[in-house]
Amino acid sequence: MSRTRKSAKPAAGHRVFSFGGGKADGQADQMDLLGGKGANLHEMTRIGIPVPPGFTLSTEICRYFLDTEGQLPDKLGPEVENAVRKLESLSGKRYSGGPVPLLLSVRSGARASMPGMMDTILNLGLNDETVERLSEATRDPRFAWDCYRRLVQMYSNVVLGADSGRFEECLAARCKQTPSGTEAALRVDDLCGLTREFISLAGAFPQDPWEQLWGAIRAVFRSWNTARAKTYRRMHRFSDSWGTAANVQTMVYGNMGPDSATGVAFSRDPANGERLLYGEFMPNAQGEDIVAGIRTPQGLRRATPPMGDSFEELMPEAFTLLESTARRLEAHFGDLQDIEFTIEKSCLYILQTRSGKRTGIAAVRAAVEMFDEGLIGQSQAMQRVEPGQLQHLLAPVFEPEARDAAAREGRIIARGLNAGPGAASGSMVLSTSEAIHRVRDLGEKVILVRTETSAEDIAGMAVAEGILTARGGMTSHAAVVARGMGKCCVTGCGTLEVDSIKGRVHAKGRLLREGDYLSIDGSTGEVIEGLLPTRPSEIVQVLIEKSLAPDDSALFRHFERLMSWADGVRRLRVRANADTPQDAEVARQLGAEGIGLCRTEHMFFAPDRIAPMRAMIVADKESDRRRALDRLLPMQREDFSGILRAMEGLPVTIRLLDPPLHEFLPEEDEGLEEVARDLGITVSKLRRKVEALREVNPMLGHRGCRLGVSYPEIYEMQVRAIYEATCVLRREGVEAVPEVMIPLVGTSEELHRLRLRAEEVAHRTLHASGQQVEVQIGTMIEVPRACLVAGEIAKQADFFSFGTNDLTQMTFGFSRDDATSFLPEYVESGILPFDPFQSIDISGVGALVRQAVEEGRQSRPGLKIGVCGEHGGDPDSVGFFHRCGLDYVSCSPYRVPVARLAAAQEALRESGEGPSMRVTSVRAARTRRI
Amino acid sequence: MSRTRKSAKPAAGHRVFSFGGGKADGQADQMDLLGGKGANLHEMTRIGIPVPPGFTLSTEICRYFLDTEGQLPDKLGPEVENAVRKLESLSGKRYSGGPVPLLLSVRSGARASMPGMMDTILNLGLNDETVERLSEATRDPRFAWDCYRRLVQMYSNVVLGADSGRFEECLAARCKQTPSGTEAALRVDDLCGLTREFISLAGAFPQDPWEQLWGAIRAVFRSWNTARAKTYRRMHRFSDSWGTAANVQTMVYGNMGPDSATGVAFSRDPANGERLLYGEFMPNAQGEDIVAGIRTPQGLRRATPPMGDSFEELMPEAFTLLESTARRLEAHFGDLQDIEFTIEKSCLYILQTRSGKRTGIAAVRAAVEMFDEGLIGQSQAMQRVEPGQLQHLLAPVFEPEARDAAAREGRIIARGLNAGPGAASGSMVLSTSEAIHRVRDLGEKVILVRTETSAEDIAGMAVAEGILTARGGMTSHAAVVARGMGKCCVTGCGTLEVDSIKGRVHAKGRLLREGDYLSIDGSTGEVIEGLLPTRPSEIVQVLIEKSLAPDDSALFRHFERLMSWADGVRRLRVRANADTPQDAEVARQLGAEGIGLCRTEHMFFAPDRIAPMRAMIVADKESDRRRALDRLLPMQREDFSGILRAMEGLPVTIRLLDPPLHEFLPEEDEGLEEVARDLGITVSKLRRKVEALREVNPMLGHRGCRLGVSYPEIYEMQVRAIYEATCVLRREGVEAVPEVMIPLVGTSEELHRLRLRAEEVAHRTLHASGQQVEVQIGTMIEVPRACLVAGEIAKQADFFSFGTNDLTQMTFGFSRDDATSFLPEYVESGILPFDPFQSIDISGVGALVRQAVEEGRQSRPGLKIGVCGEHGGDPDSVGFFHRCGLDYVSCSPYRVPVARLAAAQEALRESGEGPSMRVTSVRAARTRRI
Repeated sequence: MSRTRKSAKPAAGHRVFSFGGGKADGQADQMDLLGGKGANLHEMTRIGIPVPPGFTLSTEICRYFLDTEGQLPDKLGPEVENAVRKLESLSGKRYSGGPVPLLLSVRSGARASMPGMMDTILNLGLNDETVERLSEATRDPRFAWDCYRRLVQMYSNVVLGADSGRFEECLAARCKQTPSGTEAALRVDDLCGLTREFISLAGAFPQDPWEQLWGAIRAVFRSWNTARAKTYRRMHRFSDSWGTAANVQTMVYGNMGPDSATGVAFSRDPANGERLLYGEFMPNAQGEDIVAGIRTPQGLRRATPPMGDSFEELMPEAFTLLESTARRLEAHFGDLQDIEFTIEKSCLYILQTRSGKRTGIAAVRAAVEMFDEGLIGQSQAMQRVEPGQLQHLLAPVFEPEARDAAAREGRIIARGLNAGPGAASGSMVLSTSEAIHRVRDLGEKVILVRTETSAEDIAGMAVAEGILTARGGMTSHAAVVARGMGKCCVTGCGTLEVDSIKGRVHAKGRLLREGDYLSIDGSTGEVIEGLLPTRPSEIVQVLIEKSLAPDDSALFRHFERLMSWADGVRRLRVRANADTPQDAEVARQLGAEGIGLCRTEHMFFAPDRIAPMRAMIVADKESDRRRALDRLLPMQREDFSGILRAMEGLPVTIRLLDPPLHEFLPEEDEGLEEVARDLGITVSKLRRKVEALREVNPMLGHRGCRLGVSYPEIYEMQVRAIYEATCVLRREGVEAVPEVMIPLVGTSEELHRLRLRAEEVAHRTLHASGQQVEVQIGTMIEVPRACLVAGEIAKQADFFSFGTNDLTQMTFGFSRDDATSFLPEYVESGILPFDPFQSIDISGVGALVRQAVEEGRQSRPGLKIGVCGEHGGDPDSVGFFHRCGLDYVSCSPYRVPVARLAAAQEALRESGEGPSMRVTSVRAARTRRI
Repeated sequence: MSRTRKSAKPAAGHRVFSFGGGKADGQADQMDLLGGKGANLHEMTRIGIPVPPGFTLSTEICRYFLDTEGQLPDKLGPEVENAVRKLESLSGKRYSGGPVPLLLSVRSGARASMPGMMDTILNLGLNDETVERLSEATRDPRFAWDCYRRLVQMYSNVVLGADSGRFEECLAARCKQTPSGTEAALRVDDLCGLTREFISLAGAFPQDPWEQLWGAIRAVFRSWNTARAKTYRRMHRFSDSWGTAANVQTMVYGNMGPDSATGVAFSRDPANGERLLYGEFMPNAQGEDIVAGIRTPQGLRRATPPMGDSFEELMPEAFTLLESTARRLEAHFGDLQDIEFTIEKSCLYILQTRSGKRTGIAAVRAAVEMFDEGLIGQSQAMQRVEPGQLQHLLAPVFEPEARDAAAREGRIIARGLNAGPGAASGSMVLSTSEAIHRVRDLGEKVILVRTETSAEDIAGMAVAEGILTARGGMTSHAAVVARGMGKCCVTGCGTLEVDSIKGRVHAKGRLLREGDYLSIDGSTGEVIEGLLPTRPSEIVQVLIEKSLAPDDSALFRHFERLMSWADGVRRLRVRANADTPQDAEVARQLGAEGIGLCRTEHMFFAPDRIAPMRAMIVADKESDRRRALDRLLPMQREDFSGILRAMEGLPVTIRLLDPPLHEFLPEEDEGLEEVARDLGITVSKLRRKVEALREVNPMLGHRGCRLGVSYPEIYEMQVRAIYEATCVLRREGVEAVPEVMIPLVGTSEELHRLRLRAEEVAHRTLHASGQQVEVQIGTMIEVPRACLVAGEIAKQADFFSFGTNDLTQMTFGFSRDDATSFLPEYVESGILPFDPFQSIDISGVGALVRQAVEEGRQSRPGLKIGVCGEHGGDPDSVGFFHRCGLDYVSCSPYRVPVARLAAAQEALRESGEGPSMRVTSVRAARTRRI
């Protein structure tokens, strides 16, 4: 059945797809039908990679099976039989009967990778009879009986649903009777006896190899609907309707002696992207042995210490073949490959290939170098980097020498999940109270270490440099809260035992006490004893600190090239949220094309400003308020002048005062006396004012434009300061481009009134200075109602800017301050697929955004629309905003590169230049933000 | 130009509509074209009522004038001239030139009444020449010059835009020179001189009567667009596009001597609805004099004290004519009429008629009696009562004599918002504990007075006769809870200073001490010192207290008949919100067809329950929580049993626990020790728990179904209690019909999980008891996101119930607790047309409701949908819910009759049986809730 590549699609109704002997029914782009693993096995066979022959039962069969509650299509039996016959003729073995038994594996494989979620069964075909024949054929009875033992154990567990604990107990009991007490010490008799025990435990282990095969296939299909698989799909937004393929494949063995081995290889170094074979292997072992972690795997390349036992040295020919195979696979799939291989008696087999996980640094280097090598085009190169990883390139890192020294000294005591990028070190604390004590009272930096965190730890997390937990995944409470706070975080570090009562942490036999120094790397997940020095990333050194010349950083050059490609294709503009000239400068260096949100409230907390601000707040009369505002005016003018100057020629959206006024007054009784004295009023008057301004739900209180309505003089002062600063700069020849943004608008009437006043003040100010500047007055869309009446509001607005933080809070009814008590649980248990404050909730909040864009533009064609919430820096959300037709996104300065690349990727996707979803689905699944 | 009634519509292009001499171009149903006042003038003329002849310039002309920025249609000049000629021929006078001058008035009049919003000019046609002729014709030079003086003053102000202050100063200066210092003392010379002064002040007063007329017409049209008129329209949701008509009418004078008079008459007593002429008049006076309030008007009927000076006695013939005219107008317009009349030299003229304002009692009596008299049909009778007024019929009232005495003695010490109708008096208490002490231990009746209330005051509110707060609006905690309890409540009484520590209240310099007697009137907002006797409304005496036989109360009989008519036509079902068997019983008596919202949280505040509730909250382990819940289970079962029994055969929707748990723990340090001791835990542990549960924005925090997700055992206990109670009742033969409602759902997954658990518990409970009861599990739709994904949520819900209170809070981003700091200003200044917590915001919140209904029913056809927010008892909102296709509304028990009538009115409107908007627009405008 030879087909050319182009005409290779099987006829309709074809459901069993064979591969082997250089020919394959399927190919790489059939992931929907054959699953990711299956499609790549076919593709590899097709291009001559040594893959053990096999066949794939399509996802269609799985869907049929699930829809009919366990039926299989009528003619599937003969088709599978036929496919097995092909394997027999390719291998010269027989699956049932015959002198040399053919053994098979059945593995699941869905469209996108769901690691560990579904079932696998190995060594099918063994029974009381074939085990003897395998024993004869291999002349290794121990191997044969071990395979049989494993089959019975696996089959009982996966297919028959037996309790795996009982099997483990039997195995442990057997081992105990051996001299060394290990599995390796079990002899043939032991394994034989154990297999008998297992068979009797299992109850219904089938001796018929065909019954075994069908049982395994059914089990794989059934495993699509286990609770954990469903949860995984919900969390990754995969459809339940996909179904999984089942791959039936000839077994190969890495444990058939010293000329056998098994291992994992990356086509480039996944840590730094260098073009060399990277990975580890284990001689005379099976894949499961690597996973079990009983023996330490050895490095692939000569250079890797300890010397002398690398794959390159031990099996030089196999190494050369593996290296060239990796290059071919990389060239063929156009991406860094993560390859599973087995050497069976010096013979190389590739069991799986897929795009490999890599660090941000490796991703950027590999993408740009693969482009330079002619392996991929620019648009592919852009798709090879996960935008969120660019932020890792900007995070501080441990001094590499210090980190390597720590590694040599064995001070890397644990490794967890890289839940929040960055590097942090400090004194280890095991409780929130200790964290606060050491930070506040002793001035220390601390790393908060907990078994897992809960709402009660929030205060401790807030003061810590980094957070480390023994339990929890990428979406645990600790991970979600830490990322929200922008803190470095390592979670799920299972080898740590945290005893907060005794103030101790055990890590693989090492004991740390509260107060000991600890360092954690949230980009790699490493936990390191001692205090490691950090340094800024190279890109920050070049762009912001200017302490490194561009030519001295290859990373920077790669980064810049990638970014320039992205800028060439994206349609969305990218601005930054920045409140100071310094932040604006950083944002500009990182590629911001304007400021999308300049908050004005932080400016009032400075010591020289809080006094007039408070005087304004406690004033009873408008005239007193105006007097206090007059003192603030020149300061505000300076604020705006600085930021407008830093962004010369680019638009700066300035949001008028937003927070409730009580935020500017002291809360505690202690501060009252001093503040009252400063203000020249009585304590009781101040207390009354504080009391009067206190709110039950400040998020839904007297803030935003509601302040502007109640105290128009505040906004008047701010607008005057904006345009006075603009006039001064323009006279100097600096092109200041301010935009005035009115927050929290819920009705068109609010905006109408405030706009009239602001326009009047702006024009008066400009007129007085004889300047002509276009006055742009727009609004934040952050109250659900504003989206519902966006058509009306647009009539009063020169622009919209979605404040998706507040919009998410109100649409869900989630206070960000309080949701930490349930939101992590919601994400972890799959009630929500992800944290809606990190990635926009497309079906809820997104529906409001879409409606507002449509109605806003209908009412005012060409209305400029952006977004200035946290979501502006989230790649998935950026994609959504592109699809909504927004003009720009605005995010924190360090996320600007992320947004630039995400916008480019979405533009490529839209133009069809993006990767077929099939090729990247593995990556897409992995990189989906939770 | 005689027309029959049916063919009376003027030809197209006709824009000036004459009336007079028993003929009229227009008629009552032309309010759009002629305005309300104009249409009724035409109609009255047509049916032979003595109306001074005139003509109407249609609203079309006004719209033309406004659209063209001051142009008038080409042929209007001749048309108006022609119309004036008709008036000349009817009156035998000439408008310009001729021996007896014709004087005219120009008055505005839009489709709906906008009292005082637009302009009026009287006495047009007077100038230096005609004033002399009027003087001769009337032989009353003083009258003539006074008219001229008024014309110049009014014209200058309204048409020429002169500063009215200057005129007032001149007038005051003149008066000062007279012996008595009053206007009445001005002689002809004075008036003549004053007129000269006015003319010179005005600058451009036109002597040409035609120029005067056109100036006045233009001014009336222009006045449509004054700022105050625009604001008024926005507040009343009137369209800016209507325009106003201008009514030009022959002047008549009530100030031409003792045989002249002016007055206002109602066709029935507007206080109690009795069928007799009611009103007041002033002999020898003009309408303005009544408004100015310089003299006290006299009563119309003989019985009205003081004796001897009634209209009936002074002008018996005119009285008889007026009475028969009023009867005719009432019969013709089918409603109680409010009539303006003038007697000019014994000759009766009717200047205006419209539907009259009346109390609830009068509205019900008049409607039913007018039906009995054959004046109107049933559907008209239902339209004659404003639904909100029915609530007043149920509230207790102070004995009127006692209240008047208090007013005379100056004991009305403050006035707040009439937040919960009724009258209550008792000892003033300033805390819940004092309230409970005095009620329980001393057997006193108390009025609870607080700065504002919170959940901790519920117990105190429950035992108090009435609640008075210094802060908070119509929708504050106190107001909402009080209305829910059917308690009398006055809120926002800003002049009170409540010092609960010292046990004192300051009110405008008066000092009250805890224990002093206080009376509050929740229908008027009055706060009265001392104990005023009250009595329950007759309807309550009949229906609830059963202390009055139905036959002994005419009011009750009228009420019942009206309600039965309403029940016959409405499509919306009406349920009540009730948490206790007592409330449920009241609701049932008032016509509730089920309970739409039974809250379960208040049940836990009782002293015997708060302890296990707190034990549950402070428990660290699920097992401890379950132990505490086991103690609550029998109590909850009793709660539900009582309410299900009271509502036998009718559905009872029980909402599972909703508020954040911290509401059940003490807030202050003081309470902690005692509570900790009771719970058997340390104070520091309790404090930590309180601390951990504290929330920044509790409204958006850990509450509602989020509690159910975190602590499934709470909802399990509640569901078990519900179905155990159901089983017990069913065994007794009582048909209990519970519905389980899960609050605050924002995602379908929340409901899915909680529903599965609840169903399981329900079925297990039913199974154990061998009962078959349909399990109904639905959700409150109160988070904006729930509306956006209603299609998904509907798949998990047997019913939806809109919680429009929270939905409004989150859609607007308004916290009810805090919005009192700006919401009143928003409504007052017209940023919002009304308080969205009182009447549903149709364009914002309403859009979400509509969307949720559509998508919910699309996904689950026939889905039962109701509303259980405050809006369920607001007539306008009830109309909206009817139009949305809801199945039922649920409101507080005392609002059930309101909702029944409002639902009937909307059904009539839908079927076209409702009044044409034209006839009721005056009333509709007036009754629109702000």
